Amino acid sequence: MKALVFQGPGSRQWEDVPEPTLEAPTDIIIRVDASTICGSDLHILKGDVPAVKPGTILGHEAVGTVTEVGEAVTTVAVGDRVLASCITSCGRCEQCKAARYGLCTGGGGWILGHLIDGVQAEYARIPFADTSVYKVPPALTDEQVLFLADILPTSFEVGVLNGHVKPGDTVAIVGAGPVGLAAVLTASLFTPSRIIVIDLDSTRLARAIECGASGAIELTGEAARDRVLELTDGIGVDVAIEAVGIPETFELCADIVRSGGHVANVGVHGKPATLHLERLWIKGVTITTGLVDTFSTPRLMSLVSTGKLDPLVFVTHRFALEQAEEAYDAFSAAAETGAFKVVLEGAKHQQLVPVGAAAGLEGDAS
Amino acid sequence: MKALVFQGPGSRQWEDVPEPTLEAPTDIIIRVDASTICGSDLHILKGDVPAVKPGTILGHEAVGTVTEVGEAVTTVAVGDRVLASCITSCGRCEQCKAARYGLCTGGGGWILGHLIDGVQAEYARIPFADTSVYKVPPALTDEQVLFLADILPTSFEVGVLNGHVKPGDTVAIVGAGPVGLAAVLTASLFTPSRIIVIDLDSTRLARAIECGASGAIELTGEAARDRVLELTDGIGVDVAIEAVGIPETFELCADIVRSGGHVANVGVHGKPATLHLERLWIKGVTITTGLVDTFSTPRLMSLVSTGKLDPLVFVTHRFALEQAEEAYDAFSAAAETGAFKVVLEGAKHQQLVPVGAAAGLEGDAS
Amino acid sequence: MKALVFQGPGSRQWEDVPEPTLEAPTDIIIRVDASTICGSDLHILKGDVPAVKPGTILGHEAVGTVTEVGEAVTTVAVGDRVLASCITSCGRCEQCKAARYGLCTGGGGWILGHLIDGVQAEYARIPFADTSVYKVPPALTDEQVLFLADILPTSFEVGVLNGHVKPGDTVAIVGAGPVGLAAVLTASLFTPSRIIVIDLDSTRLARAIECGASGAIELTGEAARDRVLELTDGIGVDVAIEAVGIPETFELCADIVRSGGHVANVGVHGKPATLHLERLWIKGVTITTGLVDTFSTPRLMSLVSTGKLDPLVFVTHRFALEQAEEAYDAFSAAAETGAFKVVLEGAKHQQLVPVGAAAGLEGDAS
Amino acid sequence: MKALVFQGPGSRQWEDVPEPTLEAPTDIIIRVDASTICGSDLHILKGDVPAVKPGTILGHEAVGTVTEVGEAVTTVAVGDRVLASCITSCGRCEQCKAARYGLCTGGGGWILGHLIDGVQAEYARIPFADTSVYKVPPALTDEQVLFLADILPTSFEVGVLNGHVKPGDTVAIVGAGPVGLAAVLTASLFTPSRIIVIDLDSTRLARAIECGASGAIELTGEAARDRVLELTDGIGVDVAIEAVGIPETFELCADIVRSGGHVANVGVHGKPATLHLERLWIKGVTITTGLVDTFSTPRLMSLVSTGKLDPLVFVTHRFALEQAEEAYDAFSAAAETGAFKVVLEGAKHQQLVPVGAAAGLEGDAS
Repeated sequence: MKALVFQGPGSRQWEDVPEPTLEAPTDIIIRVDASTICGSDLHILKGDVPAVKPGTILGHEAVGTVTEVGEAVTTVAVGDRVLASCITSCGRCEQCKAARYGLCTGGGGWILGHLIDGVQAEYARIPFADTSVYKVPPALTDEQVLFLADILPTSFEVGVLNGHVKPGDTVAIVGAGPVGLAAVLTASLFTPSRIIVIDLDSTRLARAIECGASGAIELTGEAARDRVLELTDGIGVDVAIEAVGIPETFELCADIVRSGGHVANVGVHGKPATLHLERLWIKGVTITTGLVDTFSTPRLMSLVSTGKLDPLVFVTHRFALEQAEEAYDAFSAAAETGAFKVVLEGAKHQQLVPVGAAAGLEGDAS
Repeated sequence: MKALVFQGPGSRQWEDVPEPTLEAPTDIIIRVDASTICGSDLHILKGDVPAVKPGTILGHEAVGTVTEVGEAVTTVAVGDRVLASCITSCGRCEQCKAARYGLCTGGGGWILGHLIDGVQAEYARIPFADTSVYKVPPALTDEQVLFLADILPTSFEVGVLNGHVKPGDTVAIVGAGPVGLAAVLTASLFTPSRIIVIDLDSTRLARAIECGASGAIELTGEAARDRVLELTDGIGVDVAIEAVGIPETFELCADIVRSGGHVANVGVHGKPATLHLERLWIKGVTITTGLVDTFSTPRLMSLVSTGKLDPLVFVTHRFALEQAEEAYDAFSAAAETGAFKVVLEGAKHQQLVPVGAAAGLEGDAS
Repeated sequence: MKALVFQGPGSRQWEDVPEPTLEAPTDIIIRVDASTICGSDLHILKGDVPAVKPGTILGHEAVGTVTEVGEAVTTVAVGDRVLASCITSCGRCEQCKAARYGLCTGGGGWILGHLIDGVQAEYARIPFADTSVYKVPPALTDEQVLFLADILPTSFEVGVLNGHVKPGDTVAIVGAGPVGLAAVLTASLFTPSRIIVIDLDSTRLARAIECGASGAIELTGEAARDRVLELTDGIGVDVAIEAVGIPETFELCADIVRSGGHVANVGVHGKPATLHLERLWIKGVTITTGLVDTFSTPRLMSLVSTGKLDPLVFVTHRFALEQAEEAYDAFSAAAETGAFKVVLEGAKHQQLVPVGAAAGLEGDAS
Repeated sequence: MKALVFQGPGSRQWEDVPEPTLEAPTDIIIRVDASTICGSDLHILKGDVPAVKPGTILGHEAVGTVTEVGEAVTTVAVGDRVLASCITSCGRCEQCKAARYGLCTGGGGWILGHLIDGVQAEYARIPFADTSVYKVPPALTDEQVLFLADILPTSFEVGVLNGHVKPGDTVAIVGAGPVGLAAVLTASLFTPSRIIVIDLDSTRLARAIECGASGAIELTGEAARDRVLELTDGIGVDVAIEAVGIPETFELCADIVRSGGHVANVGVHGKPATLHLERLWIKGVTITTGLVDTFSTPRLMSLVSTGKLDPLVFVTHRFALEQAEEAYDAFSAAAETGAFKVVLEGAKHQQLVPVGAAAGLEGDAS
């Protein structure tokens, strides 16, 4: 089969690789029907994630159709449409039993396209399938479900739930990229009074406003802080969600949170930040970090099903899976291409699936 | 001044009474600019609430303008527009310090129009003003704020928050009267996947659908139960909110709640219900009761201010305050008149306020 | 092998049965080293639990040594000492993923000695082993761990945690049997100011006082209620835990709980109770029910390991496993025998294990 | 009367000052029967708290007897024994209504001995008495109650409750001074499996062990971190409580907390710390800060009353109030004097209260 393979820093290629096979009785194999590219895939390509070894197939977000199941698998069957998400859960370790799948110590966590082969491929092996994939209702299209693989539960769990967003709150979201926009959508589920988005990219800010943000601030650092304080009568925001991943934006969040408020860090950081305890010790703030656990995925899928959450707003570009390299080019050059999220469509969407096979495997309403 | 006075069971009259005066340094006097009638006012008139003595002025919901303040009052001043709500809080007892103002043991709780004179009058005395009234922002009209005096915080706190409504939940609301409809509006703040309303009045069900309910069931008892189970694949609902106050509707809620779900009782009950512990002991359900505390009032007011909550949907009839008797007639005969909530408008809205006085007291944008 | 087999209402026998074998790749087989008898075993014998078919081996509490593992089992190995508890968890269904294992819809829940053969036997098959058994630390004896199989997590999760016991609370526990006593021990983990135990058996009340209860009431019904109110200045208790399972004791709990307090039902009920909503609707109470989930078992085991929780207080009688019938006789006639909890000791404790086998399987420090 | 007056950095004196008088209808005056000295009083003397103006009477912890009450005061009367604590609450502002009295914006918060005259004096004025003082039960001595004025609620609320200490947890407390020791006592209320205390003072560590800590580490920095990880199988602690107030100890807490754990900062910081987000972003940690609110004071007092909490372990030295200067000398030179907490005893304890007055005011069982 073909897959997008990491060749070492700066290099990746759509190339022939062996098809995946079942390695444990809890594994399944899926045919990939839709995938997408994440900011962390770009980090891997830059060489920022040394755990990824050359030769690894990239990608940790997919909707697919089950083609094989291990003998201990009981809840999914060949032909089922499933969401394979960024987090794999062994279901057995102390962390998994506490629904902290992102911290799985039993062989799961973020492994796809990281520690094992990923899903930017024609087929993929998914370990611990019973506790790691989600069946897709027939009425939903692959694209409607695809962003439940990472950015929607990430922003919801690590941003909105950790930040304790409540009806009537004032929420600031620092960063208007895909995760920041997902935070606008998922914070809205709790009907805050105001959602203020802060970024330096006016296109992205405009998109955030379209998706329900009530205000946009095209500033950074102290100027952004002053503007937030001005908008909140000097009090600050109830919840500040960090969706960038650099010290400056984290520190901005800590500067604009009100006494008794929450800072929820979602960004992936490479450097330490300064925590101004000389100001914060008395303010009664709560600061949280975390990787997504994906425990909220079924709930978010229900909201998509009932039309309360629309993930299609993320999509700016669509490519065939075999055009993965062009997709990477477009996504990497977002400033020029305007790419926000790109969809990689599998053979099913290219009408290349033989009619006979499709009868057994088809289930997408799109 | 004039006021609507309870004369004993079956009898009430708009009549001359002495103007209220400050009785404690924590009191204020307000001019009533808008009031409304509650289902519990009708209960009092039927003689169901013996604590209410003949001679008591009725009413526990008002928006007014402060005309006098006691000398210990520090947070409201003459001329302020305030919301006087069903719950008065001493702010000092153990219950008030735990934000359970409805259970106040220091002289507050539900006292207006119950244990002391109420607010269906030209002027009213409000005890413990610093901890019991809420200032109204200039941009809001009296009518936009009026239903924050009772039904909105009641349905939100006792129904939605006690019931732990969460994004993606399936919620059933039994009873489509004013409190049930307020539960539809305030449950929506948490974006459940579905809100199913159950009542026997098709007009009220239609109103619930207009206000955001996703389904309506015009059935009762076992037939209603069967329909809910059918709609939920036999599982039942995550949260069942009781907004009627009779044993049958409470028992329906306990019958339709899923394993691990919540029953939140909002209705005022006069009789015991049967609790089927032989079925419920194993189901892991949580059942809650309560009177409103009104701790959520400022938060709900913020949501009205930012357009996230529209209380005007309740209003079907408007009367001048001096037409209070006609208003009671219309509200009591809801089946014929179609009355849902009636607004009693004070002199300010009748353009009877002298221009000079208005300059100091006026603040309503309506 | 030998096992205690249910023969239909009123009848059970220690008899020859086939040895259990692995039926699914997630199963294990254990040699039973210690078991005990539960009040629900007596209910089964009375014929109160028709789901139990004649021919079923009884018992759902055991400490044992693993003798065989299915091929999908990854976290326990032959020779491991494990606790097999009343709840089996598939680990895959929605309820299990929310840690509500008692409500498992994937084939688990309470199945041992109920829907499948139980553990009052020389060997037993335990399904879904990876998510259902708990490894025992070498320093703990079998007896120290045995009551973690049911009564300790039951009283802790369904009584103490559901009841939100907090430091400084006044807690009433209605029923001083094994579960009530376990509630005294596990409520004490939160250091309430007072624990009041109510029962009609003075011996059991004395045991409760020895185990940390601060008061005992040897009364029932209204007299018990009046005594509790007298002890609490007419306010009632913060938390009332029902540990009997009849309408009268549940209603007593609802009568003695304070405004804003919690009633946590632990008892197994066979009849409906009366819920006095005409008094309770305004009191802001929370009533919970539930079957144990056993999510707290590792935490409780840690407390036993560090000496913070002593389960040996339950043990009044010890029998060899093969004396299971005598053990049932003693446990059933508790009033005469003074039996509280009886331990059934497996062959290991009878020094009948061949030396060679013991080398591989032994791990009990007792 | 006499009082201990701050004269500017480095200087304080027991001198004649005017007696306090009622300034607002919500004020009371108390005769100080017992006071103590806090680490923050030493900070003020060093000049670290510029908000304190020369001429201010120091002290924010006292047990006293009410001698005068303002006319709006309803819940305390002349002759009542009360605890006056570090936090004053207006009871009216948004923060007070949310029980965050430490963040009071209505004129309260930490004001005694800071923004207004304090309680190291023969008499003191206490503002907002109805919402700021706590009546003392007759059975408790002044000393038993005195440490409820600051260190016990501080460690409980800001350390133990913010840190979500649970039964079975492993807790590390960094700093074995009075607040750290109070954290040992109040963390014990939740029965963690282990409490590990880290400090460089062996005497203080020994005291912590006597008070219930299960382990002591006389190390700092990386050596302390390595020892904690060694004791916890490389996992780290569930909760790390910072009770010192310097960057190094905060950073140690962030280094030893497990994935999914809590860091609760109690220390008062003067400098920023480094937050290693490059390691912490993925660990799912929660970091909290805060000033005490004292909402837990009645609950802690109940635990002292029932013998579940013994505050007398803090007392190493006793002085007459008029010896306040000697008391400061002893407390400041703790390393030499071994002083931990010193009690300043008012005239009542010096048998100088005239018999006639004592009849009306006496209530201390000591």
